[in-house]
Amino acid sequence: MKRSICVVITARPSYSRIKSVLREIHEHPDLELQLIVSGSALLDKYGSVIDVIRADGFEPNAQVHMVVEGENLVTSAKSTGLGIMEMSTVLSHLKPDAVLSVADRYETIATAITGAYMNIPVIHVQGGEVTGSIDEKVRHAVTKLADLHLVSNQDAAERVRRMGEEPASIHITGCPSIDLAADVMQKQGFLNKKEQIKGVGAEIELKEPYLVVMQHPVTYEWEDAGDQIIETLHAIDALNIPTLWLWPNVDAGSDAASRAIRKFRENNGTTPIRFVKNIPPEPFLELLSGAKCLIGNSSVGIRECSYLGVPVVNIGSRQSGRGQGPNVLDIGHDRKKIQQKIELQIEHGRYSSSSLYGNGNSGVQIADLLSKVTFNMGKRITY
Amino acid sequence: MKRSICVVITARPSYSRIKSVLREIHEHPDLELQLIVSGSALLDKYGSVIDVIRADGFEPNAQVHMVVEGENLVTSAKSTGLGIMEMSTVLSHLKPDAVLSVADRYETIATAITGAYMNIPVIHVQGGEVTGSIDEKVRHAVTKLADLHLVSNQDAAERVRRMGEEPASIHITGCPSIDLAADVMQKQGFLNKKEQIKGVGAEIELKEPYLVVMQHPVTYEWEDAGDQIIETLHAIDALNIPTLWLWPNVDAGSDAASRAIRKFRENNGTTPIRFVKNIPPEPFLELLSGAKCLIGNSSVGIRECSYLGVPVVNIGSRQSGRGQGPNVLDIGHDRKKIQQKIELQIEHGRYSSSSLYGNGNSGVQIADLLSKVTFNMGKRITY
Amino acid sequence: MKRSICVVITARPSYSRIKSVLREIHEHPDLELQLIVSGSALLDKYGSVIDVIRADGFEPNAQVHMVVEGENLVTSAKSTGLGIMEMSTVLSHLKPDAVLSVADRYETIATAITGAYMNIPVIHVQGGEVTGSIDEKVRHAVTKLADLHLVSNQDAAERVRRMGEEPASIHITGCPSIDLAADVMQKQGFLNKKEQIKGVGAEIELKEPYLVVMQHPVTYEWEDAGDQIIETLHAIDALNIPTLWLWPNVDAGSDAASRAIRKFRENNGTTPIRFVKNIPPEPFLELLSGAKCLIGNSSVGIRECSYLGVPVVNIGSRQSGRGQGPNVLDIGHDRKKIQQKIELQIEHGRYSSSSLYGNGNSGVQIADLLSKVTFNMGKRITY
Amino acid sequence: MKRSICVVITARPSYSRIKSVLREIHEHPDLELQLIVSGSALLDKYGSVIDVIRADGFEPNAQVHMVVEGENLVTSAKSTGLGIMEMSTVLSHLKPDAVLSVADRYETIATAITGAYMNIPVIHVQGGEVTGSIDEKVRHAVTKLADLHLVSNQDAAERVRRMGEEPASIHITGCPSIDLAADVMQKQGFLNKKEQIKGVGAEIELKEPYLVVMQHPVTYEWEDAGDQIIETLHAIDALNIPTLWLWPNVDAGSDAASRAIRKFRENNGTTPIRFVKNIPPEPFLELLSGAKCLIGNSSVGIRECSYLGVPVVNIGSRQSGRGQGPNVLDIGHDRKKIQQKIELQIEHGRYSSSSLYGNGNSGVQIADLLSKVTFNMGKRITY
Repeated sequence: MKRSICVVITARPSYSRIKSVLREIHEHPDLELQLIVSGSALLDKYGSVIDVIRADGFEPNAQVHMVVEGENLVTSAKSTGLGIMEMSTVLSHLKPDAVLSVADRYETIATAITGAYMNIPVIHVQGGEVTGSIDEKVRHAVTKLADLHLVSNQDAAERVRRMGEEPASIHITGCPSIDLAADVMQKQGFLNKKEQIKGVGAEIELKEPYLVVMQHPVTYEWEDAGDQIIETLHAIDALNIPTLWLWPNVDAGSDAASRAIRKFRENNGTTPIRFVKNIPPEPFLELLSGAKCLIGNSSVGIRECSYLGVPVVNIGSRQSGRGQGPNVLDIGHDRKKIQQKIELQIEHGRYSSSSLYGNGNSGVQIADLLSKVTFNMGKRITY
Repeated sequence: MKRSICVVITARPSYSRIKSVLREIHEHPDLELQLIVSGSALLDKYGSVIDVIRADGFEPNAQVHMVVEGENLVTSAKSTGLGIMEMSTVLSHLKPDAVLSVADRYETIATAITGAYMNIPVIHVQGGEVTGSIDEKVRHAVTKLADLHLVSNQDAAERVRRMGEEPASIHITGCPSIDLAADVMQKQGFLNKKEQIKGVGAEIELKEPYLVVMQHPVTYEWEDAGDQIIETLHAIDALNIPTLWLWPNVDAGSDAASRAIRKFRENNGTTPIRFVKNIPPEPFLELLSGAKCLIGNSSVGIRECSYLGVPVVNIGSRQSGRGQGPNVLDIGHDRKKIQQKIELQIEHGRYSSSSLYGNGNSGVQIADLLSKVTFNMGKRITY
Repeated sequence: MKRSICVVITARPSYSRIKSVLREIHEHPDLELQLIVSGSALLDKYGSVIDVIRADGFEPNAQVHMVVEGENLVTSAKSTGLGIMEMSTVLSHLKPDAVLSVADRYETIATAITGAYMNIPVIHVQGGEVTGSIDEKVRHAVTKLADLHLVSNQDAAERVRRMGEEPASIHITGCPSIDLAADVMQKQGFLNKKEQIKGVGAEIELKEPYLVVMQHPVTYEWEDAGDQIIETLHAIDALNIPTLWLWPNVDAGSDAASRAIRKFRENNGTTPIRFVKNIPPEPFLELLSGAKCLIGNSSVGIRECSYLGVPVVNIGSRQSGRGQGPNVLDIGHDRKKIQQKIELQIEHGRYSSSSLYGNGNSGVQIADLLSKVTFNMGKRITY
Repeated sequence: MKRSICVVITARPSYSRIKSVLREIHEHPDLELQLIVSGSALLDKYGSVIDVIRADGFEPNAQVHMVVEGENLVTSAKSTGLGIMEMSTVLSHLKPDAVLSVADRYETIATAITGAYMNIPVIHVQGGEVTGSIDEKVRHAVTKLADLHLVSNQDAAERVRRMGEEPASIHITGCPSIDLAADVMQKQGFLNKKEQIKGVGAEIELKEPYLVVMQHPVTYEWEDAGDQIIETLHAIDALNIPTLWLWPNVDAGSDAASRAIRKFRENNGTTPIRFVKNIPPEPFLELLSGAKCLIGNSSVGIRECSYLGVPVVNIGSRQSGRGQGPNVLDIGHDRKKIQQKIELQIEHGRYSSSSLYGNGNSGVQIADLLSKVTFNMGKRITY
């Protein structure tokens, strides 16, 4: 009988990061893919990622609504609780042989807790990395709840091991997000339709130089989320280069961020900016690979862009601590300095490709591993 | 202004383990105690621990119902989710300066997640210990979510540090459960009323030799919970020594355990056994200190009994891995062998007191520390 | 394509009342049965009704845990809320053409609200009746949420119509509980195995005269639930006739009732009483039909016993208002008076059968109706 | 001791409708006001009504987050369930003597169910009215759960009585929304600041003729919500009169509606339209009273505008059935016909004031009544 692996997709970035794994599980003769789409991936306001998933040929086995409106500190906790309650109902119906959870969001820990209590092996992808904010706590807590660790690189593996996990449960598979980046670098041609860049604001001509911005609110500073966005908006406005701006994630503070963006949009506008909610993963990576610079605090800058060689200006504390390649320049929330760093990066141009986060075959490795691995459910700390 | 510390009590054992801390916070000039009573501590079926808490002079600021009936793997997850949802409402009302969570149950992680997302410092008592079952995963995950670690001994401190926590956030305070044991050893006279040992079954005469049993279901083996209890029941029945049997905890498997006990009670009965649900902490420790042997898998055998010097027969895997003193003999679920180990312990008699889990002043140390400590909310793993 | 009807079973009595409908839907060529088992029907402590359901050949499509422990006023509300959350997840998965809800409990209104908001036609069985307690409010609120009303008799139909429901949506089908009573009266022989009357306490010999007690706590008087049970216990004890006592329902107050029963059991006992949690529907009705008298406040006394002709002593306010046959004598919570009424009923003996609640073919009528009816979802009050 | 009345505000319209009651309860010597702000009233996306409430001098005793994101049929049910769970926690903390719930939304029934199960008297304002959509079911179900009915007019009173409610529990107090309309008509001058009409889009000059649009999605047609909005947008665009457009409510379908509006905004724009999320109640009524016509399906058109004499074009089925004054013209979702009706209304101009929904002193009447009334908790249907 096939071993069933239940993958939980919760947001735009978690889909991009796991898409190649979905494909390889789906095609593996000894595995059966179960797919739960949940959290902000279901919401129109974050670009209805579920439509992209379906367009890619994956039909969800269940949809889990778990986001309590408010996007403040209380509702983040409440959404985690709701996620556990809903996920336990769905998992008791799907009865997977293992459940796979990505990274470090509240949906991730909701899945991990549910699996742990329901005695379903928990597979964690992207453990052992270091960042700021609440994600840092959540990521390592998920490591302690997980039974199998599929990490991006040696550094991450080392950290997971030092936290007391069994060496046999830790596997360096690279980050599956790099698989898509590799596809895009090899094939190109994914970004072939105008309508892939839906959104509002100015029309951007991709043959001309352009920038991309992805800036999420940082939990510990959520009241400042609006102010931080404003700094970046002014930096972009001063540069006067056409810009694609990806709408922030659902997170404490994202309402504040959205509000700041909307206000700026109404009252400013010499620089052409297009605000977009969602682009399918490969076209998005192709778009990034053509950008003069990525600005913001998305882990895409650290991860996929290191492989793509795209220059990145990484703002604020959100990614600090995560191992980064030469393509990244760090800076604080200061419009002048952000502008300067962007100018430096434009001048430098493309970087050479780094395999810091993988070399493009994670999906194949992971599916193969999942078809063979033995889960040890009664794990103990190793010291 | 006083710093407010919110303590969450969820069950009979967590109350015993934290009672001296409640008292010391309550009496500390710079601290304000906020008390949430929750989980099985509210339920009549587990002895209405809330009545004991009130009788001790502590008035709860809030009661949180969070146990979803069923006591199986699905409802354990669901109760955790409900706990987070409820706790977030209550904490947003109480607005404590920090929240304190004990040990490794689902209420513990519900509290830790809520605190982490709500940006309230999380204080964890009894981290860094090692045991079997789901508790092991939960305990270490709570460590990764917590901002301050108050541990029992050097071993536990070392483990927490190795998991990547800042040395400055780790304090060896001893386990506050030992404070009550010390009180009982010094003063005696707590167990002065017949009605403290409410329950059903035979009357037990405490001047004669007697045994105490505390055996909880083990999650990973919950379907066997009934069978495991039956082995112990037969061992006790064969010894024919009057026995006080503490009713099992709310946990996956506890329905099965209760059913096994009820069935045994209906159909057997040469050995006088009294089944009791709840005894206030100090009378209970005095009762233990007078027992010929404690049998079962409660951490009380490892912890308080090491200080009290009470002989313990520890059954099965639930406590394996936790540092134990010479007073403990381990054994599997086999009625014959359990009986033999009990006979060995009766023959040996009282052990000398060990300070493996503290020396009786944890409450004072902890309150003092909480009045002064600075919480570092933006923690990172140390490697 | 078959029309799918989702039936929600939540407790022992709701199963008995709907069993013939399940059977007839299951066997109807144009209908597909979907079965959700939920609430106390899943709990061992209330007799694991789900095992009986499976033994009868019905396999649940989903199990919904929704009971928050505590059994007080707060947790009744909370269980209703949890029921809606869980039911919405399950119904969005099962996608039935209509959902059927029975009577007047919190699971009933949870189902009705979920159906109403999800735009799934709601079928209500047993609307339009009158009783005391919170059930009264809930039953009529469910009527206002339902799209199709399958009522027991002319009285109930008239009440539903007067509440402003479309005449075309109201059908007098009789109560399906009477179908089982009719089966039992015609065939006998259902109660053929000793093990059907599992429980604790005295052995009862069914060839000798015996009584049956079913007494549930009444919400508005839940603090008195224990005292009320005590009166009945003393009345039974004074009569000294062997008695089968059915364990109370999950409801606010049922913990108090259980405690009172347990205490009485420990300290009394000249009269042989057997306490049982659950008996499958037909054996139970056969047991009732052989009893000298049914005592308590169950609607079974009003409903099935009017058809079976079993004498009933109906205690307290729980059933007051509901149309009753000549077989019922009403009395308050007074041990002496209860005893006298039981003696009167024993003297009178069996009553002749009444068709006040149906004539035994409800299941067939209902299935036939459900295969043909058109649901009008945009209903308005008729005045 | 003062009698405490807990009022639950859940959205912009429910605040406007109950504001005068809040004020009168607050100022009544025998009453104590408890205020819960909940649902969309907490959300920035619906204009943060809580800020308006605070600015009016009312400090909430609790905030209840209960909206599960998604705004589809499943999440409407789920939000109701979450509302009950949260409300029960908050009410068990506030312990009011009665709880007041307004109208017919999911928060309304969540409050009513919670009160009913917790044995807290439920006061319902605006029962007995008739409309289309799910609101119709919910409103009458709330009537059957409520213990006191404060209705707008004789028609509504008659309907509540016919549903089987005790005459003594029904009081014609008028609708408190009319109190504010009366204030505005007498005093004027509430709309004195530009910033009261925050929003995006064109600047509207209130000295020139202008229209107001309020159009909510209708649940039973939620997939058509976008199309319906489009018809109205085109009608307005064709008229070329400056327009203030109030953002739709949180409801199944409101995402679709918002999306349609956003799309229209991006691609059209000869007619000046300003989109606003929230205006405090009195300035809003003053704004309405100056409008040439109100267009859409808000009950404000039926209710407040009948008193204000403002011409209304009422679109679609949402308000059908509700008693309406001569100021209202009904029409379907057809851009041409909508345009014609608006032109008719502009030609007609102001209507004379009607007291169909009250005469401006509901707040005083209600507070007086609440200070004296005896709640009968054990109600029965009257027939």
